[in-house]
Amino acid sequence: MSEFGPATTVRRRTEGAYDVDLDPDWSIGDKPNGGYLLAVIARAACDAAAAPHPLAVSGHFMRAPVAGPAEVRVEVIRQGRRVSTVRAGLWQEGRPFVETLISAGAIAAGDPEWAGDPAPVLPPPADCPEWEPPNFPIPLFRRMELRLDPATHPWPGNGNPVIRGWIRVRDEAEPDPLLLLVAVDAMPPTVFHLGRFGWAPTVELTGLVRAVQAPGWLRCEARTKAVEGGWFDEEATVWDATGRLVAQSRQLALAAGS
Amino acid sequence: MSEFGPATTVRRRTEGAYDVDLDPDWSIGDKPNGGYLLAVIARAACDAAAAPHPLAVSGHFMRAPVAGPAEVRVEVIRQGRRVSTVRAGLWQEGRPFVETLISAGAIAAGDPEWAGDPAPVLPPPADCPEWEPPNFPIPLFRRMELRLDPATHPWPGNGNPVIRGWIRVRDEAEPDPLLLLVAVDAMPPTVFHLGRFGWAPTVELTGLVRAVQAPGWLRCEARTKAVEGGWFDEEATVWDATGRLVAQSRQLALAAGS
Repeated sequence: MSEFGPATTVRRRTEGAYDVDLDPDWSIGDKPNGGYLLAVIARAACDAAAAPHPLAVSGHFMRAPVAGPAEVRVEVIRQGRRVSTVRAGLWQEGRPFVETLISAGAIAAGDPEWAGDPAPVLPPPADCPEWEPPNFPIPLFRRMELRLDPATHPWPGNGNPVIRGWIRVRDEAEPDPLLLLVAVDAMPPTVFHLGRFGWAPTVELTGLVRAVQAPGWLRCEARTKAVEGGWFDEEATVWDATGRLVAQSRQLALAAGS
Repeated sequence: MSEFGPATTVRRRTEGAYDVDLDPDWSIGDKPNGGYLLAVIARAACDAAAAPHPLAVSGHFMRAPVAGPAEVRVEVIRQGRRVSTVRAGLWQEGRPFVETLISAGAIAAGDPEWAGDPAPVLPPPADCPEWEPPNFPIPLFRRMELRLDPATHPWPGNGNPVIRGWIRVRDEAEPDPLLLLVAVDAMPPTVFHLGRFGWAPTVELTGLVRAVQAPGWLRCEARTKAVEGGWFDEEATVWDATGRLVAQSRQLALAAGS
């Protein structure tokens, strides 16, 4: 039985409010992972809209919450036949920490109609080392196994801010597409390749969930196109074990030292 | 004097409400362009938050409004030193049409700290034809000049859903970074290259405004990575006349015939 389900459980208290319990195991240092927060929020939003999946989740991050009890406040703005639009925010101690807009509906069930770039070819997971920084605990890696392509790690490497690797949840049960929201935010900051080490707070992250992943390893590639005024973009693409593109994201974050 | 400023003017009526007048000239057919709507909404949001620029604008589109009077309802969720977070929605006849979350602040003033891929090399604008479909008027092109790289047009071409071209506002005055939100949504749908002709409604579009553009032509590249269950992603990147990356976006839209 996967720990991801229990760690993202939402309990409806009123029409617009869900109680949640942020699990300390899904954190980077002592801060819950941003993608994990989006997964919790999206679960509440989909429940409120009676929609099976999030299609597009736009999260704007204002403050980093702590693990423990929190609340998701949900407003279904429009209930549609194909897509419902939901505003949902994560609150703790009476203040909003993350605000989201979510378009929810049913993601692709059949084969892709068209696909472009194939999934990147990586050395097998056994040849990709696990990564954890020396003096900074990442509890998330108790739950998610992250193995980095040696061509993109260690850093700073060739000055190219690209990181590729394998990702899976350690105790996988039935694949849950909400896990893809964690996967798009699980890579170390690509700007490590530019020597910008340290905390890189996300201001905005939008994730698209394109298909339900097949069981097994996910492949993820994160890349940055520009650092300007301290801000950098980080785009993540996730493919499943069959090579299908299952999620995409881009975030805007602040590079360490800015 | 540019027409873009007057077409995106917002008039504050109360603390949380701005009157706007959607200009029919910024439309595709009879529907105001989605990027134009985001520019109008972002102008109100930045005014309410006393922030100079939008950094990240996430728009979720529920219905297509018509040109004419409308209202932007704004709530500043958090006023920050570096970033303010704003929720802003476009309303018409008492209903919401577009909801947004906007992180606003000051975009890069100096040179980029780091930049990856250079701007694409295109034939000069004079060698890139203007485009307008035969039986479908696009009033937007009265205001914006769009010249498509013959390597990426006409369609369906080589089956590769990439469209590149030059874009500028016809009556440019001082460059306005809000115009970049129009630029990221001005290209024809890339899925035309896959033979999916027709209206492709945007469900979600998030745009990052990375820098103030230099005067002159913008270069834009739009590309799609997958079509799944009728949904396609379209990523747009915009460079200014100096070759600087100034805006990025990704949208999720529904391909015609889905």
